[in-house]
Amino acid sequence: MLHLKSPTDDSWLAQVDSNLEEVLIDHAHCEKKAAGTALNLIFHYVEDRELCQEMTEIVNEELEHFHMVLDLLERRGIRFRRLKPSQYGSRLHALVRKSEPERAVDRLLVAGLIEARSCERFQALAEHVSDPELATFYRSLFESEARHHATYTRLAKHFAAEDVVETRLAELYEAEAAIMAEREQFPRMHS
Amino acid sequence: MLHLKSPTDDSWLAQVDSNLEEVLIDHAHCEKKAAGTALNLIFHYVEDRELCQEMTEIVNEELEHFHMVLDLLERRGIRFRRLKPSQYGSRLHALVRKSEPERAVDRLLVAGLIEARSCERFQALAEHVSDPELATFYRSLFESEARHHATYTRLAKHFAAEDVVETRLAELYEAEAAIMAEREQFPRMHS
Repeated sequence: MLHLKSPTDDSWLAQVDSNLEEVLIDHAHCEKKAAGTALNLIFHYVEDRELCQEMTEIVNEELEHFHMVLDLLERRGIRFRRLKPSQYGSRLHALVRKSEPERAVDRLLVAGLIEARSCERFQALAEHVSDPELATFYRSLFESEARHHATYTRLAKHFAAEDVVETRLAELYEAEAAIMAEREQFPRMHS
Repeated sequence: MLHLKSPTDDSWLAQVDSNLEEVLIDHAHCEKKAAGTALNLIFHYVEDRELCQEMTEIVNEELEHFHMVLDLLERRGIRFRRLKPSQYGSRLHALVRKSEPERAVDRLLVAGLIEARSCERFQALAEHVSDPELATFYRSLFESEARHHATYTRLAKHFAAEDVVETRLAELYEAEAAIMAEREQFPRMHS
């Protein structure tokens, strides 16, 4: 199901080891942003009943994850705070075409790609971190991110033919790998 | 708990009787917007843990109500669609002061005022409509709107002293009544 063109490499994992607190805070922000993305999709495509239903479930799940991360931060005495985000999300969103229905297809596919990368990162983190609580936590999130990825890709097919969506998705996978290849100075969930 | 300065009058209820379909569609939009407002407050005041917790519950509840209204529309064969909103929300939001912490106080109080008016309108509708399914439905929403109003007002006191908040709330109640007094051409939940 996940066809990411570049796996997470060890240098990112090494960055995480040195900046775990920031990565955890960034993770909370990502869950919050994912809820916002899903709610915005309801706002823009209110007439698609299945989309509204699926996005509602995603909003609820992402907010639940947001609170799970906040709880984890609290248990570790880490203050949740604003943090400069990585450029990943804004660079992917810049690829969204401006006119409908292409816009809907791209918004859904980009949201799905971000979920796919989160899924891949959680798996890499679960295998990498020595902290058993964190490993269990990352593992617990893996399945829902994979499911969200599938949901977004399926919903994109409400707005264009299946082959058109698959072709665009392949293009976006390439673009995602290119964005991912430009490592940023500070590690983030998507950097 | 509710200190609205103007009760809903019979002329609005008469407008509703002639345009029930539009009022139901507008109601669905209002629930969606209420979820958006609560999520935006999480985005802006992430460091207030209690606020994040309460807003998450409100997002979930408002989306649940959104789907309840969508289901009702579907049962009645009414197609959910975009609708020109009333000016009520944007006129109230225009009263929000620009600098913090006054901005936080006003955003929370305005959100709470909208909940108070919804609560008052649901009560008026529950007593007015002859359709038993609708009367039961409006009655079922009454309690949560009143609770949300109380939550928003309580959270505003995280950003200013209690008496400062109460004084500002009294001003906003007056402004709300003035906005409400200017009846709009098409009936909406808040018009």
